[in-house]
Amino acid sequence: MTVKLGPNRYGKAETRLVRVVRDGTTHHIKDINVSSALSGDMEEVHRTGSNAAVLPTDTQKNLVYAFARKHGVEEIEDFALLLARHYVSAYPSIHHARVEIEEYAWNRIPGRSRHSFVRDGGEVRTCVVHHDGDGRTTVVSGLTDLVVLNSTGSEFHGYIVDEYTTLRPTTDRILATAVTARWRHAGDGERPPYARVRECLLDAFAQTHSLSLQQTLYAMGERVLTTWPQVCEVRFALPNKHHFLVDLSPFGLDNENEVFYAADRPYGLIEGSVLREDAPDAGFAWE
Amino acid sequence: MTVKLGPNRYGKAETRLVRVVRDGTTHHIKDINVSSALSGDMEEVHRTGSNAAVLPTDTQKNLVYAFARKHGVEEIEDFALLLARHYVSAYPSIHHARVEIEEYAWNRIPGRSRHSFVRDGGEVRTCVVHHDGDGRTTVVSGLTDLVVLNSTGSEFHGYIVDEYTTLRPTTDRILATAVTARWRHAGDGERPPYARVRECLLDAFAQTHSLSLQQTLYAMGERVLTTWPQVCEVRFALPNKHHFLVDLSPFGLDNENEVFYAADRPYGLIEGSVLREDAPDAGFAWE
Amino acid sequence: MTVKLGPNRYGKAETRLVRVVRDGTTHHIKDINVSSALSGDMEEVHRTGSNAAVLPTDTQKNLVYAFARKHGVEEIEDFALLLARHYVSAYPSIHHARVEIEEYAWNRIPGRSRHSFVRDGGEVRTCVVHHDGDGRTTVVSGLTDLVVLNSTGSEFHGYIVDEYTTLRPTTDRILATAVTARWRHAGDGERPPYARVRECLLDAFAQTHSLSLQQTLYAMGERVLTTWPQVCEVRFALPNKHHFLVDLSPFGLDNENEVFYAADRPYGLIEGSVLREDAPDAGFAWE
Amino acid sequence: MTVKLGPNRYGKAETRLVRVVRDGTTHHIKDINVSSALSGDMEEVHRTGSNAAVLPTDTQKNLVYAFARKHGVEEIEDFALLLARHYVSAYPSIHHARVEIEEYAWNRIPGRSRHSFVRDGGEVRTCVVHHDGDGRTTVVSGLTDLVVLNSTGSEFHGYIVDEYTTLRPTTDRILATAVTARWRHAGDGERPPYARVRECLLDAFAQTHSLSLQQTLYAMGERVLTTWPQVCEVRFALPNKHHFLVDLSPFGLDNENEVFYAADRPYGLIEGSVLREDAPDAGFAWE
Repeated sequence: MTVKLGPNRYGKAETRLVRVVRDGTTHHIKDINVSSALSGDMEEVHRTGSNAAVLPTDTQKNLVYAFARKHGVEEIEDFALLLARHYVSAYPSIHHARVEIEEYAWNRIPGRSRHSFVRDGGEVRTCVVHHDGDGRTTVVSGLTDLVVLNSTGSEFHGYIVDEYTTLRPTTDRILATAVTARWRHAGDGERPPYARVRECLLDAFAQTHSLSLQQTLYAMGERVLTTWPQVCEVRFALPNKHHFLVDLSPFGLDNENEVFYAADRPYGLIEGSVLREDAPDAGFAWE
Repeated sequence: MTVKLGPNRYGKAETRLVRVVRDGTTHHIKDINVSSALSGDMEEVHRTGSNAAVLPTDTQKNLVYAFARKHGVEEIEDFALLLARHYVSAYPSIHHARVEIEEYAWNRIPGRSRHSFVRDGGEVRTCVVHHDGDGRTTVVSGLTDLVVLNSTGSEFHGYIVDEYTTLRPTTDRILATAVTARWRHAGDGERPPYARVRECLLDAFAQTHSLSLQQTLYAMGERVLTTWPQVCEVRFALPNKHHFLVDLSPFGLDNENEVFYAADRPYGLIEGSVLREDAPDAGFAWE
Repeated sequence: MTVKLGPNRYGKAETRLVRVVRDGTTHHIKDINVSSALSGDMEEVHRTGSNAAVLPTDTQKNLVYAFARKHGVEEIEDFALLLARHYVSAYPSIHHARVEIEEYAWNRIPGRSRHSFVRDGGEVRTCVVHHDGDGRTTVVSGLTDLVVLNSTGSEFHGYIVDEYTTLRPTTDRILATAVTARWRHAGDGERPPYARVRECLLDAFAQTHSLSLQQTLYAMGERVLTTWPQVCEVRFALPNKHHFLVDLSPFGLDNENEVFYAADRPYGLIEGSVLREDAPDAGFAWE
Repeated sequence: MTVKLGPNRYGKAETRLVRVVRDGTTHHIKDINVSSALSGDMEEVHRTGSNAAVLPTDTQKNLVYAFARKHGVEEIEDFALLLARHYVSAYPSIHHARVEIEEYAWNRIPGRSRHSFVRDGGEVRTCVVHHDGDGRTTVVSGLTDLVVLNSTGSEFHGYIVDEYTTLRPTTDRILATAVTARWRHAGDGERPPYARVRECLLDAFAQTHSLSLQQTLYAMGERVLTTWPQVCEVRFALPNKHHFLVDLSPFGLDNENEVFYAADRPYGLIEGSVLREDAPDAGFAWE
């Protein structure tokens, strides 16, 4: 029997970096978490342990800090591209680089101090960039943990009913989810501003009278695609954060969609992609 | 040898409740997490398992939901007081009640919909209320996980130096922490608005040129106490979230307080209380 | 511009189930976490919200409990197959089912009681099963969070050195990782016993003198493949849990690989697949 | 109004240390997490930021590593005592030291290698030691997250029933909890072996036919106290990890204590202390 090496990659995960830019007494901060994963001539290291083709993950960490100092960090996609291209161009044994960045938002504390910040605990901005030795590049932007809730405007009925059904149909329920959305760009050029895509997602969530979470998912994706021609595909993972109406009748109380139990597990999980008819092939974009 | 029962309490922890109030098409939501802990005639249940004096934790959960429907939920301290007083007055075997509530904030999604919300992922508002059969009541309000950062205006030097010292003094560092603050009220009457106390904390953090995190802690407590006469004590737990300047000299780069590594563990932890000279005895307020 | 629906699936995640089987006074327990994800005729629900083709996730939860009662739960792969086949055969609108199960191990508390257990906090056993309407079935078994450490027998040197290198080569370091391993079966028939595959992984980890974590990964995969002909591929995610030797020289102390700092972030992350030359196509097995 | 400083302490939390001891080719490892908290002449640092009395938390971290090298690490209580006494004796401004240690267990991987380990993911061993300038010392040992379950031998009935009761009494239920137990020693001298106290807890849990979780708590404490004269008090926090019998009657199935839903939140929480009649005053032991 012969054994062989399949797909593989290695890198440094979760290099935490805060960069401060001083503009007189006004400071700006950038708070990111960088993970790189490299592939290439990796047969030898797996079979014999020879590291001749290996760029140590420690060096990958150093590169993140050094490049932040040398080139600054503006849009996370651009910083990820910078790193990914460097890995592939500077090291012949590296044929493919994947760089993922998370960004944590901070707001200025109002007042005289221009160097004081409070962390915005909302969603985390994300990106995943791929670049390979053939010059192919993909850029996926995204966000995760954007928690949203409609307290009405959501129904659920007309589903399959069989011997295992106990759920009752409803024409008015809470719909809540923690949005993970990632949008793939048609090229590695111009991209829509992050805040505007986020706005599309929130608007579509708020404005869709929902008969199912899938319908809301589709509406959110469609809104982004019809607003931003640079985006060719949007993928979602939407946990249905169930809010169950509490039965208060044992206590002689009615409960007209007022008091809910916010459940943890189990939860529904809706995953899906919405894309343009003519979207280019995704290649390795989602890997 | 004789064995006896010491201090004890029991209750239902983390009852998650979302309440929706409809004002025409404008909805308001309240998202809380309630934990109750009761004490009283508990010898028998510990020694023989007789539950005659025990209010099941399941019933405590029911009470949270029923009371939310009957009485509404406005300030979390008031809802906690309502529950605590009920436990002690309605059940002779219960002599003392502790009710703790966490509140998660939501913001309205801008636009036409008045029933759409996005969770504010910032700090969690908290309170702990005690009430006992002798009519003694304590109210502690608070917040946790308010993450703040000053990118300058912080020094650290002049400390004890000995054979185990490797830290170098600095006159300019990042100061960052995740504030847990709890403020004790002198009585169970009027209380300062939560948002205004939070503002005091942020202002004092931002405006204090800090020579040590302890100094910042004290300034934050003092600010609350001098602004709000109803508050008699403030307690803090402030993890020092270290941001280490990365040494880029091996790469021929300087690093003038620009690129930092945000560390996880270990971390400094500063805990302290600031109180009025004439603060009434805390009793069981902090338990 | 035309927008279309891409790949999608939906289901109930993390249905927690404990099953007790009584054999006289001797009890046996099974503690699992089941997630199902279904695909099929889902155009309508995304576009119009019509749920006519939708099996509610609530019903999927019911099915897990009902099937556990009806059919019992032995090997998690078999229970997953049972559910997956049912979804596809019983509901015409469902063309593909993915069922994932985690299993938590418990040990018997020694002594007279035969119904008392203590949870084994070690690794979690996992499986992912796919089944579609064309009768294709894939079974992947696995484990996650098996934390292992070699306190010697690990080297790292001979890697790429350039201007961003600061790491020093070593011929003796701690090698530690939290193994996530998944092994794909060539068919849906006989499978090697879980405990024996786990043993292969531990043995290979312990017996490999390691020049790189990749080498250890490959050795672990190869060991499983050469021992168990039913397995055609093994995939790993191995975080390199760095243990850094503490520099005690400022305190006049040597440190001959004795005192280490166990770091959290960043960490190396090594991912890779080892497979048979003649392994059948994976199809949707890893999705 | 005058504001003053109340109780306070500061230190380095969660210093992670792994120590390897080589006995020929047989290695032994110790994996701990150390947190120190110091109190003393801290007025100035809070009021003016003068750090003259402050031992930097960075130095506290150094001390942990240096002392591990100098003195080794055997029982965690002894290592904690060593550190606590050093802080108070070596630094005049430090009047009180609290040292807390967590220990993570590892098992040897069976086979030829004597340097290969797999982490035992079960409970975490803990201790908290206090020492002050007056020579008073307290030692509390403990464990946390010891997850245990009785699949029968647990009843719950005879409790208070009122208008808010919906729970039905039961004579056969699953009883499960994640034990946090801490045992206070009468002095700082001889202590019972950790493994034997753990055994007492497991035995008492398994052997107690339980009419309430409080009864089980008391039995566990009593068992430790009657077995080990050096222990004068045991404190517990026992979350009642509810396992609800699933109602399968809608599907035409009975369910005789066979299939359960393991719930997350809310959960019961039982806290209590069991102590000797003649236990010495606890002083600051539990702080």
